[in-house]
Amino acid sequence: METTITPRDGRSGTPASATRPRVVIIGAGFGGLNAARRFRNAPVDVTVIDRSNHFLFQPLLYQVATAELSPADISAPIRGVLRGQRNTRTMLANVSDVDVERREVIASDLGDGLEHHIPYDYLIIATGARESYFGHNDWMKRAPGLKSINDATSIRRQILLAFETAEVEDGPERIAALMTFVVVGGGPTGVEMAGAIADLAHKGVRRDFRAIDTAKARVLLVEMGQRLLPQFPQGLGAKARRALERLGVDVRLGAEVKQIDEEGALVGDEYVRAQTIIWAAGVQASPAARWLGVEPAKAGRVTVGPDLTVAGHPNIYVLGDTASARDRDGSPLPGVASVAIQQGHYAAKAILQRIRQGDPAAPVAPFRYFDRGYLATVGRTYAVGKIGPLLLSGLAAWVVWAGVHIAYLIGFRNRVLVMAQWIWKYLTYQRGARLITRDPRDTHADFRRATTASSAR
Amino acid sequence: METTITPRDGRSGTPASATRPRVVIIGAGFGGLNAARRFRNAPVDVTVIDRSNHFLFQPLLYQVATAELSPADISAPIRGVLRGQRNTRTMLANVSDVDVERREVIASDLGDGLEHHIPYDYLIIATGARESYFGHNDWMKRAPGLKSINDATSIRRQILLAFETAEVEDGPERIAALMTFVVVGGGPTGVEMAGAIADLAHKGVRRDFRAIDTAKARVLLVEMGQRLLPQFPQGLGAKARRALERLGVDVRLGAEVKQIDEEGALVGDEYVRAQTIIWAAGVQASPAARWLGVEPAKAGRVTVGPDLTVAGHPNIYVLGDTASARDRDGSPLPGVASVAIQQGHYAAKAILQRIRQGDPAAPVAPFRYFDRGYLATVGRTYAVGKIGPLLLSGLAAWVVWAGVHIAYLIGFRNRVLVMAQWIWKYLTYQRGARLITRDPRDTHADFRRATTASSAR
Repeated sequence: METTITPRDGRSGTPASATRPRVVIIGAGFGGLNAARRFRNAPVDVTVIDRSNHFLFQPLLYQVATAELSPADISAPIRGVLRGQRNTRTMLANVSDVDVERREVIASDLGDGLEHHIPYDYLIIATGARESYFGHNDWMKRAPGLKSINDATSIRRQILLAFETAEVEDGPERIAALMTFVVVGGGPTGVEMAGAIADLAHKGVRRDFRAIDTAKARVLLVEMGQRLLPQFPQGLGAKARRALERLGVDVRLGAEVKQIDEEGALVGDEYVRAQTIIWAAGVQASPAARWLGVEPAKAGRVTVGPDLTVAGHPNIYVLGDTASARDRDGSPLPGVASVAIQQGHYAAKAILQRIRQGDPAAPVAPFRYFDRGYLATVGRTYAVGKIGPLLLSGLAAWVVWAGVHIAYLIGFRNRVLVMAQWIWKYLTYQRGARLITRDPRDTHADFRRATTASSAR
Repeated sequence: METTITPRDGRSGTPASATRPRVVIIGAGFGGLNAARRFRNAPVDVTVIDRSNHFLFQPLLYQVATAELSPADISAPIRGVLRGQRNTRTMLANVSDVDVERREVIASDLGDGLEHHIPYDYLIIATGARESYFGHNDWMKRAPGLKSINDATSIRRQILLAFETAEVEDGPERIAALMTFVVVGGGPTGVEMAGAIADLAHKGVRRDFRAIDTAKARVLLVEMGQRLLPQFPQGLGAKARRALERLGVDVRLGAEVKQIDEEGALVGDEYVRAQTIIWAAGVQASPAARWLGVEPAKAGRVTVGPDLTVAGHPNIYVLGDTASARDRDGSPLPGVASVAIQQGHYAAKAILQRIRQGDPAAPVAPFRYFDRGYLATVGRTYAVGKIGPLLLSGLAAWVVWAGVHIAYLIGFRNRVLVMAQWIWKYLTYQRGARLITRDPRDTHADFRRATTASSAR
């Protein structure tokens, strides 16, 4: 069944108007949501489509995975963010295709599974990326990545459950495997995860257990290249490595993960028995290239021109991790939040300018990325990064990191709550969100139902 | 495979001692956890077994279900609570039986499914209760109860998704069903849920939607008896009813839910089409009676004597919702947190006294319940209740309610976070935890996996 959605005249809806250009934004991440906010009060009808109901502040996701923050602390309901924009509606739906001839986005909403066709005059695709297992998709279940709230609570569950099981386990080999954590990939996510797990194990929960010493937990960080943080200047990667080693992380450079199975992973030539393996090694763009019928660039990205539109489709913009865009000097733009944010603002401005000029292909100034810098944390109070021309490391970098992340969090409430929890943790080493909750992909998923008849509360 | 667990000499474990009496506590709710804390520094070896890793502050669970608080805000890791008690170890495991002859608790831990036998000299069973569907267990999936974090996030998901679906839906009948919420049971949980849903719909998210007016959402509260809050004095039930009606809740007294199916519920003689049905109508004790091989009392509870032990088993104490205990005047004790808390303290004191006297059946003073009162909220700033001899209603009762609940929350961190979020909500009407996350029992559970190949971010 198909339905074509046109704005209805609800209590407070924008009056349906055939004359106002329709902008459809797919994906409410950093790129899409910042584009949407730019259309506030503009003479357009905006539809934002996302398959989650919340914007997710992905740079702090590793803190949910390591039991430091709650999911809601780093999320904001998309509807809430856009509630004041009367020309904008939000749609929780799953996009399956784009009909570039009829200029329609094809989506099914999550409630009834019906197919909806959403017509657009201008389309912004900002659907991000997911993990890439480089052809080993069978590793996905065993070595989850860290892209969504559900990924994070699932990893949190796995880490906490490993300690719980080790506490009641008798075999020393099995205990060692339960207390071994392999993080694959030495980029910012991998570095931050490895540091946070080491902090949690070696400090956070140490006094909670009786039979095991969690300080003996082994955290491996495996990176194929010759240094950590390859996107950062060389010296910072070495500094991050030393900081991780001080936290007790076993950093393996130039090491490839050749196999992952139920028992563990083959790291270089060493087989490491490990219960928990976390994948932070690579990403692959969402299937936007297929929707548009264009040849994908590296990692499945969609190649865009200097105005972020797709060749032959001057009304289709692709942003962030979905796009393969180049800086003025020809170098590829990195897959970081600040690129997506700036591209979101740019796309909205370009569309509004072209609408004013009455020509969807009117010339606009090319996108220019203003690189403010980058930062990655290593454990509790250490970070490395580059702010403008300055290379920073240590506590100073961490303070900048904390300030930047608090400032970019959406919503006063989240800022206050996250700050309060950080202060609490840095004073006490305690983490507040040490909840083991069920995960649907887990084999224990039916645990509760199967045991309601015979179990402890 | 069976293993018998005896305390091991870990890094920081209590030295294994054959001479110290072993106390095993099943269930770390209000009763079990308060008993455990009483054993601090006492000459006993304590094992606390729970199938969750966290203590849950159940009285605030309805606020998680209605997107106001995060799960971690009302939970505390059991290990964290007991970390300072060197004589106490915590075990995440699922109890399947008690061998009263050999004095062993039989449990399997969640990690490997192996069976463990945990020997005890004294046993405290405080495993709580779960929903009772009065013979209609097939309603469980359609009309979930509110007992665990997973229940609460599942109900939160269902409520929020109902509005999301209604927003993109075209058929007026279907929209009406999506925006109808039936709460079954007029006790405190039902009253609090109905008030909170009405608040959320009519105020909290109203400005977020364009096609629907969430103020038109219908909230039904169905109670078989002739008044709400039957445990409270008559006048308070009538006050709660009027307060709910002011919030727009349709209160149906003397109405029975005769059938629940995919489309809705038969309420008295009216068939109500509703997407969301929440069960708060009754509870049933955990299967402790079966473990002990005793005839269960009403609602599956275990009958205990004035010292809270089971007839014929002077070393087995049963507390809280699992027990059928009587007050001095012969009236049955209600299933509320304060009874469980006081019983937990009592059981630990009785055990320690009997250990000192060297006789597990030495006479002790009978348990006496000190009834401080009870309170239930109705919406944002209204509550009804009884404090000592005083009947309270309105804002004053709400202030007392808030103070009592903040005071009883475990942990300074949770107190501050919950208070901050309440203040935020009462100032802005906004709820911070409006997250739709996946639920394993839901048919959409495999949504992500099925759609990773073709979907919006």
